[in-house]
Amino acid sequence: MKEMFGSPGKVSGLALRIGQCSFAAASIGTMISAPGFFNSTAFCYLIASMGLQVLWSFGLACLDLHALRSKRSLHNPVLVSLFVVGDWVTAILSLGAACSSAGVTVLYSKDLGYCNSPPHLPCSTFQISVALAFISWFLLAVSSLVMFWLLGAV
Amino acid sequence: MKEMFGSPGKVSGLALRIGQCSFAAASIGTMISAPGFFNSTAFCYLIASMGLQVLWSFGLACLDLHALRSKRSLHNPVLVSLFVVGDWVTAILSLGAACSSAGVTVLYSKDLGYCNSPPHLPCSTFQISVALAFISWFLLAVSSLVMFWLLGAV
Repeated sequence: MKEMFGSPGKVSGLALRIGQCSFAAASIGTMISAPGFFNSTAFCYLIASMGLQVLWSFGLACLDLHALRSKRSLHNPVLVSLFVVGDWVTAILSLGAACSSAGVTVLYSKDLGYCNSPPHLPCSTFQISVALAFISWFLLAVSSLVMFWLLGAV
Repeated sequence: MKEMFGSPGKVSGLALRIGQCSFAAASIGTMISAPGFFNSTAFCYLIASMGLQVLWSFGLACLDLHALRSKRSLHNPVLVSLFVVGDWVTAILSLGAACSSAGVTVLYSKDLGYCNSPPHLPCSTFQISVALAFISWFLLAVSSLVMFWLLGAV
């Protein structure tokens, strides 16, 4: 198996996982701080999906850290297959959550005009949360592609 | 390069392309038949993205048909790289469009209750269109995975 950027048990892989975890946590924090987010199913789904991503990325970051400290290789076909499936499921759920929230945010701010007229929703907070979710998804997509590539190159 | 289900220039690949193209076209048709869809940016984006998918899948279906009739192989690394990039970009755009439309549809039907009370939006038509878009995306995702796998196995 080739050694490449972002593969498990490397510093770049660990950095990607920490980035995913922090941006997802920041997205949840921003969304929870916006009053009235619970009126929209898409925003609740965003929080659930980002929560799953925090758990998954944090777990893999711990595994990467362990592998780095004990200098063990994580390039085991079974382990990589597990990472691939988990990464892909999480990435698709995250993209779905980010896109549905983006759709609702655009509807509120542009189509319905709920930001400047009553009920005066905090659209900028929603937008920041969606942007953070997209950044987190992008980092996860990089990891997923690297994992799938590693699996294909076995 | 391995011969596998759904690879370019095979009957299964052609069937996948025709499926993508027809479901995307059906999704556009259903959405256009719903009055008031143009009030939501997400629905307009769904039509644009499904339009792109129809063009892309139709083009590749023609290429597959040509390869099948002339018994030529399309397993050229440069050609497969081109298919991979096109498939992935189209798949991500389609998933984004389907998810943002699903978010807006759920908001209309469940959170705002615009289906049973005024303005009485045609929510079931929106739901059918979104479901067709998801089926089309799923078929495109199968093609994308096969292409990426083929590229990794070069």
